[in-house]
Amino acid sequence: MRQDEPLRTEIIAVGMELLGPHFRDTNSLYLTQKLEDLGLDVSFKTIVGDDWDNLTLSLRHSLSRADFVIASGGLGPTTDDRTREALAHVLEKKLNFREDILEAIRKRFERRGMTMPAVNKKQAYVIEGAEVLENKNGTAPGLWLETGGKIILLLPGPPQELIPMFEESVWPKLQKLRNFFTSRTILKTTGLTESEIEERIFDLYPQSPEIRMSTLAYPGQIEIHLAARSPKNPAEAKKRLDRLQEAILDRLQDNVFSPEGKELEEVVGNLLRNNNKSLATAESCTGGLLGNRITNVSGSSDYFLLGVVAYSNKAKVRLLDIPMRLIDEHGAVSLEVAQAMAAGVREKSQTDLGLGITGIAGPTGGTPEKPVGLVYVALNSEKGSEVTKNLFLGNREAVKFQSTQRALDMIRRYLLKIKRP
Amino acid sequence: MRQDEPLRTEIIAVGMELLGPHFRDTNSLYLTQKLEDLGLDVSFKTIVGDDWDNLTLSLRHSLSRADFVIASGGLGPTTDDRTREALAHVLEKKLNFREDILEAIRKRFERRGMTMPAVNKKQAYVIEGAEVLENKNGTAPGLWLETGGKIILLLPGPPQELIPMFEESVWPKLQKLRNFFTSRTILKTTGLTESEIEERIFDLYPQSPEIRMSTLAYPGQIEIHLAARSPKNPAEAKKRLDRLQEAILDRLQDNVFSPEGKELEEVVGNLLRNNNKSLATAESCTGGLLGNRITNVSGSSDYFLLGVVAYSNKAKVRLLDIPMRLIDEHGAVSLEVAQAMAAGVREKSQTDLGLGITGIAGPTGGTPEKPVGLVYVALNSEKGSEVTKNLFLGNREAVKFQSTQRALDMIRRYLLKIKRP
Repeated sequence: MRQDEPLRTEIIAVGMELLGPHFRDTNSLYLTQKLEDLGLDVSFKTIVGDDWDNLTLSLRHSLSRADFVIASGGLGPTTDDRTREALAHVLEKKLNFREDILEAIRKRFERRGMTMPAVNKKQAYVIEGAEVLENKNGTAPGLWLETGGKIILLLPGPPQELIPMFEESVWPKLQKLRNFFTSRTILKTTGLTESEIEERIFDLYPQSPEIRMSTLAYPGQIEIHLAARSPKNPAEAKKRLDRLQEAILDRLQDNVFSPEGKELEEVVGNLLRNNNKSLATAESCTGGLLGNRITNVSGSSDYFLLGVVAYSNKAKVRLLDIPMRLIDEHGAVSLEVAQAMAAGVREKSQTDLGLGITGIAGPTGGTPEKPVGLVYVALNSEKGSEVTKNLFLGNREAVKFQSTQRALDMIRRYLLKIKRP
Repeated sequence: MRQDEPLRTEIIAVGMELLGPHFRDTNSLYLTQKLEDLGLDVSFKTIVGDDWDNLTLSLRHSLSRADFVIASGGLGPTTDDRTREALAHVLEKKLNFREDILEAIRKRFERRGMTMPAVNKKQAYVIEGAEVLENKNGTAPGLWLETGGKIILLLPGPPQELIPMFEESVWPKLQKLRNFFTSRTILKTTGLTESEIEERIFDLYPQSPEIRMSTLAYPGQIEIHLAARSPKNPAEAKKRLDRLQEAILDRLQDNVFSPEGKELEEVVGNLLRNNNKSLATAESCTGGLLGNRITNVSGSSDYFLLGVVAYSNKAKVRLLDIPMRLIDEHGAVSLEVAQAMAAGVREKSQTDLGLGITGIAGPTGGTPEKPVGLVYVALNSEKGSEVTKNLFLGNREAVKFQSTQRALDMIRRYLLKIKRP
């Protein structure tokens, strides 16, 4: 094994289904992050089916390129599951039957009042020289093998088996391969565009390979992902991260709603609770998404009392006491109606804050004067009313999401007494 | 090229960012489905960074295994973008400068009032013998190269460039490689468990390689994905698909809410519209998710008039006219309160149907008598009231989603006059 530089690391995901169009790759994202945290950068990921020739070829190629190969999947009991056999074949090593492993699998079935099917017997074979990794959440044991200057790790495919096995059995072993300690955080912002953010922070992009910074932009939310590492100790990594985080916060100020990756609804929920303020919402075009997001936070019943989804004009009039003449005069999508919705729901529920949203989510319903994406958001409080006029881009769901971002951010800025972006 | 059997096909995705923990792989899922539709099964997918040695090694290995190699990414103007150069190097072919391509790139910048940066010049180089694929949505042209009995396709990485280029320039070329015509559909169900479904349809799993059937289970929704293919013509593929689809529908009957992949909120929306029925909802633990889902369907204002998110007891009493004594007597999470919410919101909004949901989404708030996941869903109509008591598993979001599935399915079954599962 090369001691002088980081291990060349590869991941192989095995399984027919992984080559189909429905594959959602969560295992390798999880593994990548854990490896990165140790300073082990992944240089290849391969996805291969259970065809014997392809599987052995893939192992051969990876072993020719890498020092550390992690393969997941294909350890099950069926005839399609051949990762163990393929690796033994490629390494020209024997598979030894282990009575104790068979016994453990048999007991697992017994505990559930079932008899172990005969096919499971193959899971009790171990490649000579390999260490067995216990699977507490399934029948397929993992394997850790050091041979010919290389490390090979076999893990089961299902994430609910792979992740606990990795945390419990693999992570402690990886400490000896550790090159770096890593600290991570995510800064989340809303209200500024991606280019406004880039303009303010472009000179902070780190030159050092020990710090990584990347910007991910979604409609209504821009995230700055930071990772800092140190070959010496976690405290130094944390110090590097803190320094960069502070520099970014200094540029973006309170446009960052969370410097530690929290969701906006959680940040706003904490502010409402800490300020002892209650909230009611009146939604039209967002159709309940705002209420849904607020109530995704456990304990939100402490501050969120009422949401009204007043989709029809009749509902606006009857439940929120909005004068019909206001709707006739300005239209349901108007600054005036947004304000009246916020005031109406606050009055109805006797809360500290009332929030009103009305707009055109699309794709239909737009006019030249009131195009798709036009959304008014109003906040009513003891200090009176404030309202924003927004023109959001994107499809129906993107317009709805951006509208709720604006609404939550208006509450945040009100409670923190900071001005609009 | 092998004429006798399907081409061995591989996909390589190139880019440092694809090896990081934030990668969402959409390109290769898209490509896989398109290739499958032609009968071209992908045998490997490789993800590799922009390191020169790894990139060339990866191309070498793929070209040694496959007849058809598709590489995406690394065609941009920066020094990190080297897929074109790496492929030329591996194939020992020259890169020829093409004035007409440079001119096209320069004009693209000019149309936006910009001057082309000097770095873009490298995008005007073409591997000898390759055909250039126009990029209407970016500066990086694609390449199609047939050499040594193999086909190699280079595509740009951004999906908004890759997909249109594939549809316009690549798809017509692939017709000559077509082995099969394919038809697809998705049957969606709710209300039955995965094992109940398996029991009813296990013997329908096709033996023929021309038909594929896979079951994907989510909390509250189980999907059966079908694909049928024919070497001769699309009509035969469609006939095979129809035959299997009908056999499954015969077993699962009206537990399938859509035989063609529609969302439940869309199915219910169409039923409401066609039956000329209006709906109002009163949500507690789902916090607006039901309203949000209903209003994700464009045109839902035709039938959805009002949603109330009565998170507090006070809101339940004040807005829905629920007697406080009912809450005191039975608790806010009870069959009686669910029924009163459904009746109250229907009365308030004068709709044909009223829907009430109350429950404990968790993770906190559960008791031995009323555990997390206990959710009552009530439907009120001119025919009176029906209510279900449910115990959903999973985290807060899973409980919320399953509650809205049950609510929508109760409306569906009411309008279709079919009994509960």
